[in-house]
Amino acid sequence: MERKLIEKARELLNRNLISTTLSTVDQDYNVNVAVISILDMIDDETILCARFGADKTYANLKETGKGVFLVLITDNQETKDGIRVYVELVDDLTEGPYYDRIKARLEATRYGRFPLKNCLVFKITNILPVSMLKREQVGDQD
Amino acid sequence: MERKLIEKARELLNRNLISTTLSTVDQDYNVNVAVISILDMIDDETILCARFGADKTYANLKETGKGVFLVLITDNQETKDGIRVYVELVDDLTEGPYYDRIKARLEATRYGRFPLKNCLVFKITNILPVSMLKREQVGDQD
Repeated sequence: MERKLIEKARELLNRNLISTTLSTVDQDYNVNVAVISILDMIDDETILCARFGADKTYANLKETGKGVFLVLITDNQETKDGIRVYVELVDDLTEGPYYDRIKARLEATRYGRFPLKNCLVFKITNILPVSMLKREQVGDQD
Repeated sequence: MERKLIEKARELLNRNLISTTLSTVDQDYNVNVAVISILDMIDDETILCARFGADKTYANLKETGKGVFLVLITDNQETKDGIRVYVELVDDLTEGPYYDRIKARLEATRYGRFPLKNCLVFKITNILPVSMLKREQVGDQD
């Protein structure tokens, strides 16, 4: 993965923006997407995630283990920027240093009144820009 | 599906906002998400979608046929609103009235210079709000 994409992922994920989503899927290929924003990218390949609701997302991750985070930033619907971070679930914690770390982060946010259920630990498998337009000049979709 | 959710989906999808995404998945449960915004919800259960790039999304849809659109509207990262629309691919057209209809819509947008490849036809299988917080008071995630 390119260094600049790793750094961009870290910067954007760790801002915990309200426009951060996680897409997941169950065994029958039913795709879900949810706002999941309390994250901490702690090194180049690891993301901690606070799970306090997100029942469907959580069930999907326990079934298939794969997902993609999107941070999408739009400027009055005129321009867009962001990052796509592809992940696999590698651990699901209810205690320990990682749990305490994401719990402290959660409590400092607008969601602080919700008890932390799980600290999900993801391994990053790929990082892509939001749009491939600038690279390929063939389309804004990917 | 609730009438108010159907109407909200129509209003938001048909605005073709830059913050409209489609999450899809391949047979190996690799999830993808892409900005896919040129849409036309033509009745309570049918969405036409302009495909002019989006190679991975398109390949995923041909493999598993399922996805979820998200329109997410954030107000300076303070509040959020939007809709989640769960879909199945039911047709893939390269000519005909639906193709011509979405082609005309595409050409009127910022993506007008990109040739339309396919008119994807989706059936809506479910519609949910972005957040379940107001309903369940248990968490902002879902």
